[in-house]
Amino acid sequence: MKLRAVPFTQVSLEDDFWQPRQETNRRVSIPQSLDMLEQAGNLRNFELAAQGAREGYSGPVFMDSDLYKALEAVACSLATYPDPELDRRADAVIAQIASAQRPDGYLNTWYQINAPDRCWTNLRDDHELYCAGHLFEAAVAHYQATGKRSLLEVAMRFADCIDRVFGDAPGKRMGYCGHPEIELALVKLGRAVEEPRYLRLARFFVENRGRRFFAEEHGTPPDQYDGTYWQDDVPITEHNEVKGHAVRAIYLMSGVVDVAELSEDGAKLLSMADRVWHNTCEKRMYVTGGIGPSAHNEGFTVDYDLPNLTAYQETCASVAMILWNHRLNLLRGESRYADLMERALYNGFLAGVSLDGERYFYVNPLESEGGHHRRTWYSCACCPPNVTRTLASLGGYLYAQTDEDLYVNLYAQGTLQTALAGADVTARTQTRYPWEGDVRITFSLDRPVEFGLYLRVPDWCEGASLRLNDNANPVTAPQESGYLVLRRTWSDGDTVALSLPMPVLQIEAHPQVQADRGRLALQRGPLIYCLEACDHSVPITEIVIPRGASLTPRKTDLMGGIVVLQGQGGHAPAADWEGRLYRAAQPLPSVPVTAIPYYAWDNREPGAMRVWIPF
Amino acid sequence: MKLRAVPFTQVSLEDDFWQPRQETNRRVSIPQSLDMLEQAGNLRNFELAAQGAREGYSGPVFMDSDLYKALEAVACSLATYPDPELDRRADAVIAQIASAQRPDGYLNTWYQINAPDRCWTNLRDDHELYCAGHLFEAAVAHYQATGKRSLLEVAMRFADCIDRVFGDAPGKRMGYCGHPEIELALVKLGRAVEEPRYLRLARFFVENRGRRFFAEEHGTPPDQYDGTYWQDDVPITEHNEVKGHAVRAIYLMSGVVDVAELSEDGAKLLSMADRVWHNTCEKRMYVTGGIGPSAHNEGFTVDYDLPNLTAYQETCASVAMILWNHRLNLLRGESRYADLMERALYNGFLAGVSLDGERYFYVNPLESEGGHHRRTWYSCACCPPNVTRTLASLGGYLYAQTDEDLYVNLYAQGTLQTALAGADVTARTQTRYPWEGDVRITFSLDRPVEFGLYLRVPDWCEGASLRLNDNANPVTAPQESGYLVLRRTWSDGDTVALSLPMPVLQIEAHPQVQADRGRLALQRGPLIYCLEACDHSVPITEIVIPRGASLTPRKTDLMGGIVVLQGQGGHAPAADWEGRLYRAAQPLPSVPVTAIPYYAWDNREPGAMRVWIPF
Repeated sequence: MKLRAVPFTQVSLEDDFWQPRQETNRRVSIPQSLDMLEQAGNLRNFELAAQGAREGYSGPVFMDSDLYKALEAVACSLATYPDPELDRRADAVIAQIASAQRPDGYLNTWYQINAPDRCWTNLRDDHELYCAGHLFEAAVAHYQATGKRSLLEVAMRFADCIDRVFGDAPGKRMGYCGHPEIELALVKLGRAVEEPRYLRLARFFVENRGRRFFAEEHGTPPDQYDGTYWQDDVPITEHNEVKGHAVRAIYLMSGVVDVAELSEDGAKLLSMADRVWHNTCEKRMYVTGGIGPSAHNEGFTVDYDLPNLTAYQETCASVAMILWNHRLNLLRGESRYADLMERALYNGFLAGVSLDGERYFYVNPLESEGGHHRRTWYSCACCPPNVTRTLASLGGYLYAQTDEDLYVNLYAQGTLQTALAGADVTARTQTRYPWEGDVRITFSLDRPVEFGLYLRVPDWCEGASLRLNDNANPVTAPQESGYLVLRRTWSDGDTVALSLPMPVLQIEAHPQVQADRGRLALQRGPLIYCLEACDHSVPITEIVIPRGASLTPRKTDLMGGIVVLQGQGGHAPAADWEGRLYRAAQPLPSVPVTAIPYYAWDNREPGAMRVWIPF
Repeated sequence: MKLRAVPFTQVSLEDDFWQPRQETNRRVSIPQSLDMLEQAGNLRNFELAAQGAREGYSGPVFMDSDLYKALEAVACSLATYPDPELDRRADAVIAQIASAQRPDGYLNTWYQINAPDRCWTNLRDDHELYCAGHLFEAAVAHYQATGKRSLLEVAMRFADCIDRVFGDAPGKRMGYCGHPEIELALVKLGRAVEEPRYLRLARFFVENRGRRFFAEEHGTPPDQYDGTYWQDDVPITEHNEVKGHAVRAIYLMSGVVDVAELSEDGAKLLSMADRVWHNTCEKRMYVTGGIGPSAHNEGFTVDYDLPNLTAYQETCASVAMILWNHRLNLLRGESRYADLMERALYNGFLAGVSLDGERYFYVNPLESEGGHHRRTWYSCACCPPNVTRTLASLGGYLYAQTDEDLYVNLYAQGTLQTALAGADVTARTQTRYPWEGDVRITFSLDRPVEFGLYLRVPDWCEGASLRLNDNANPVTAPQESGYLVLRRTWSDGDTVALSLPMPVLQIEAHPQVQADRGRLALQRGPLIYCLEACDHSVPITEIVIPRGASLTPRKTDLMGGIVVLQGQGGHAPAADWEGRLYRAAQPLPSVPVTAIPYYAWDNREPGAMRVWIPF
């Protein structure tokens, strides 16, 4: 990795956009998620397992993972927002988890209750290694956030157990999980506790994937086996496209990036990841940064198949896009990955939770006839705790660094503390991003220190400019891999003012995207906008926004102070088509239009929504 | 029928548009079609049948019909363009046909050669009644054009034979043809020779259709039978949509209109025909007036499924649209049917033949990547003689009348002779239609006579105006069923000048037509235009014509003097999308564009073509 992330423990958010969301996350979403997990039986499953019960398990096979993800959210939140009640609650849950762990380190409540003698017999479907992965991630977060080793010890015991079972060495066996996750989690755990065995095990799971192991495991005749859904169709280095279940695919790709530098096949792995990345973001990604158009496989179909009304775009898949692109950004130090991270974060991901933090989307269409709404919880509850853990750890995605360079990947008001060139550096960012494109960073330093400051120029931005210490003349900074670079000796109190112009953009999709033909999306800054029924006097399906239409951003008090885009559209009444198939195109009567950020839809009166608007 | 057509024998075309096409038809296409039929064995089949041969049949089962259609074309051409050589050739062919007819009147060379004892055993697939229908049409045309009864006698003997076999009466059997045609042909024959048995037989075939007879004929279990392809899925009065094979569907609907006034179920039949008509032209018709999007069934699929690149739009199906809408126009005296007749004639149909009369399209896409071209002939040769017979009989579609009213449905320079209100009326039309919208009609009358003149206002026209006898002030004529009506006493030399403004129109399709989203078609007068590669400096797939773009009609010497539409479009290079899925919409560099009439494409350098152009 060229860069390392500045961890969320060293970043505090102090803005009007993310900070209230983290606060809502801590006060509403996280406690509610723990309540829901109690109600759904996730905790009870551990209690039963601890008691040696052989019946009474609740929920789907991957229930443990939801609890682990919720715990990860608690841990991340505690790091930046101390909360004794939440801390206590986490300790109780962790004790419960620890009590269920078998002496050999094995821990999976479904198998312990339902089939203790059949562990590791159905890796394809039963999510044992997937659940373990989420345990490892939660444990690392909890350890980093609180310094406590309680969950970390549980995780290490389970990792050791898995390491005794799987691997190349004599007496160990082949296998990998139907749902990737453990790969990236083992790397995280291995780095946190400096245990190379865990890194080697991650590498084993990645490198062997695609051996069509699931055919063998299930006795599927080779000519009848299609491993695409599980990314088990071709050897891992031979993927050319992103395929199958979206979350699985991108969790796997994240693990691929993590293990590449440990692998002898590292170059091949990264070259594969590049091909898949290009395919993903050039042919199979929504404008919101989300992925996976089809409900059928919760995943990918074919190039340019990006339906709007039936877009699946699972919230977890947007999380996966953040995870993967974050890793690629660290690997390469290129802004294009951070661009995608930003796109997925502010749009596909953020739509996943209501503004009040009480309801979640699992499925995120880009168009709705009015019947699609967030729900409090899901029987398959992967998305809600994925949202809470991502929001709680958000600070960790903002900055990256080397020993001598600081990269600013996401702009948000707040404070960073880190070490650069051997000196303690505090950077305070002031900005009203994403509503305004001015970013001011002030450094507090004990002594002058030389480092490079890399400021990302977002892909949506043209004409970024930079000023130093309020000098009237802009600085001409070289651009490198998508960053404006200021390498100099910094003194205490130095400020950098970055100006990112944020015009309203009309976005067009590649002509092969049939669903978006004749339509444009609205974007301002990192935010993709949409029309929602409650802002309009006519059905939004009858609204046209011509190419080049002038829409004006206007700051409001709505929904936490969103900026809406307002202007005149054309009204094309559906009734005018009654009994007609063709007609001469005529100028349309005008109608006022108001666009709101996509993430903010379905927070007011229920109604129709549309991202791609006919022009 | 409210109106009767003025037959093609009373109409001569003397214009620069149709007359040269009829001349090419007579000099090139018709003789060539007879040559091709000789080469393909169509004539030889009759020779073999006459000899009682039991082997040697050439071609598909419906070969006889192609010859009959070619003969119909010869006959119609002879009526307006006497041609002794063609007349002699027709007589020889007719003698050949007559010699093959069995003593009982039966005539089908496939069965006579291959399976003389199995006649009428596979009505679903074997086209016996279909071939008979084309014999009847050819016979009536030949009789009307030449006064000769040679082919008419053959036709009547065969019709009598069929009438002895099929019907409700004791000793007669159930059945109808898999390919409708005989229904409308029996009505034509019955009216020509005033034989009510033929009309009753037509009614029998129409009224019984949909009894799922083909399931019975082929022993198909009811739950496995899908008669949609043959319009045998529901009782004839219960169709709500146009379905199955396009030519079959619309030939049947033409027969339905023909028999409705003879049938006790006439009202129900017409109400069904109305539903099907609305479905056809409001949801399942190309802007060119053609029908049948799918090659799979040579027919219909679902509402609004109108792909361009893969449009099947068989030339014969455009002929069917002309036949059906002509009948509906006569039935109701409403212009909207003539509008569709015109649309299909000038576009979907006329594209079916090359300007030199030597090559034909069977399939008429609305977009081509450059590989689709007309051919000299087809092994399934239904289209070429359908083109020649339609062109040769074109005069018969121009005018309709009652005893007191004259309707002008299509505008073309030429002369009409008919009787109105008991007087001989000659009307001479002068116009440069379809290139210009001014139409001047001058009446020659022996004595003043009162009649109504109905001038169609085309659906594409706004602001039609009318002047009488070169008076400076326009006449205010009432509009009735889409016609401007001048009812008055006419004197010899009276002239009417109709002005139909012909601006360049940008046509949009119903928003449900996915294939045309974000695209507009160009129309001027009755002509739909297209872009063809050889007129452009950039690939036509990279050309955008913005909404409201100004295109100017320009008369040229190209291809018989077409009017092209010229102006500036935008150039959106495909290469600009390399590696991109979304981008901010920008103004495009301009590029000169030239549109030519759709019918005229593929007459110069082979290349790409596109009707629906992104805006």
